[in-house]
Amino acid sequence: MDNALVNCVFCGLLESGSATWLSRGPHAAAFLPLPASALAPGHTLVVPREHCTGVLDATDAALHHTISLVRRVGDAMTRALGATGVNVLNASGPGSGQSVAHLHFHVVPRWPDDGTDLWPDRRSSHPATGDEHQRLARALNNP
Amino acid sequence: MDNALVNCVFCGLLESGSATWLSRGPHAAAFLPLPASALAPGHTLVVPREHCTGVLDATDAALHHTISLVRRVGDAMTRALGATGVNVLNASGPGSGQSVAHLHFHVVPRWPDDGTDLWPDRRSSHPATGDEHQRLARALNNP
Repeated sequence: MDNALVNCVFCGLLESGSATWLSRGPHAAAFLPLPASALAPGHTLVVPREHCTGVLDATDAALHHTISLVRRVGDAMTRALGATGVNVLNASGPGSGQSVAHLHFHVVPRWPDDGTDLWPDRRSSHPATGDEHQRLARALNNP
Repeated sequence: MDNALVNCVFCGLLESGSATWLSRGPHAAAFLPLPASALAPGHTLVVPREHCTGVLDATDAALHHTISLVRRVGDAMTRALGATGVNVLNASGPGSGQSVAHLHFHVVPRWPDDGTDLWPDRRSSHPATGDEHQRLARALNNP
C-alpha cells in the first residue's frame, strides 16, 4: 500500500469497517457522516472503493460505480424517509473546501418543509477574463 | 415527443442549439449558464441528452455519460482556467431547490483566493427519528 492510501481516512474506514454503513460493496460504499457534520437526518456519503482524491483524478469506472450508488441511496431516501428530493454535493481538489482527500458525494435528503436552502449564497470573487468559454471549449476538445 | 420533453427547457436547448456550448455530444452536453446565475467565472452545466428530471429517475447510462463529462469539464477548468479544484452540485426533485426539471450537474471552478465557500451554512430542520440508518439500509437492500 502506498502512503496516500495508508494515510487516507476513508480507505481506512473501508478496510476496517468502523463506520455506520448503509452499503459496502466491492466497488462503492455508503455510510453516514459523523452526526455533528450531517446537514439533514439521513445525510449519506457515497465513495468508491478505489482510491482517488476527487472527481478530477477518478477513473470512469470509479465515477460510474459511485454515481449509480448515489442514485440508489437517493431512491432509498424517498422510500424510507419520505424525502421528496435530494441534493448531491462534491468538493474536489485544493480550494474547493474538500475535507477528506478521497472522492465522496454527499447525498442530502430534502423535504419541502425542511427550512434550508443548500444553494450557495456567495459568488466567487475570482476575476473573470471574459474568454472562459473559448478557453474551456478549446481545452475540452484537446484533452 | 411527449409533453414532458416538449416543455423541457434543456431538451429545447439541446435540440435548437441556442446556448453557450462547450461540448454537445450524442450522450451528454456542457454549456454555460446565463451570466446572472454563474457562481464563478467558467461555471458550467453538464446534462444528459436523454431526458430525466434528476438523479432519482436517471438511467445508469445517462448518469455515467453525464458524470464522465463532469470530470472532463473539471479537468479543462484546471488546464484552461488555472482552477485548483471544483465543486459539483446537483438538486433533484421537489423541495431540493431544483430550477429546471432536467438532470444537470453544476461544475464550479475553485481557486484558493476566490473568497467563497460553497458548503451550505444552514442545516435541515426536518425532524430526525433516530432510526434513519436502519430505514435507509433496509430500503437500499430491498430496491
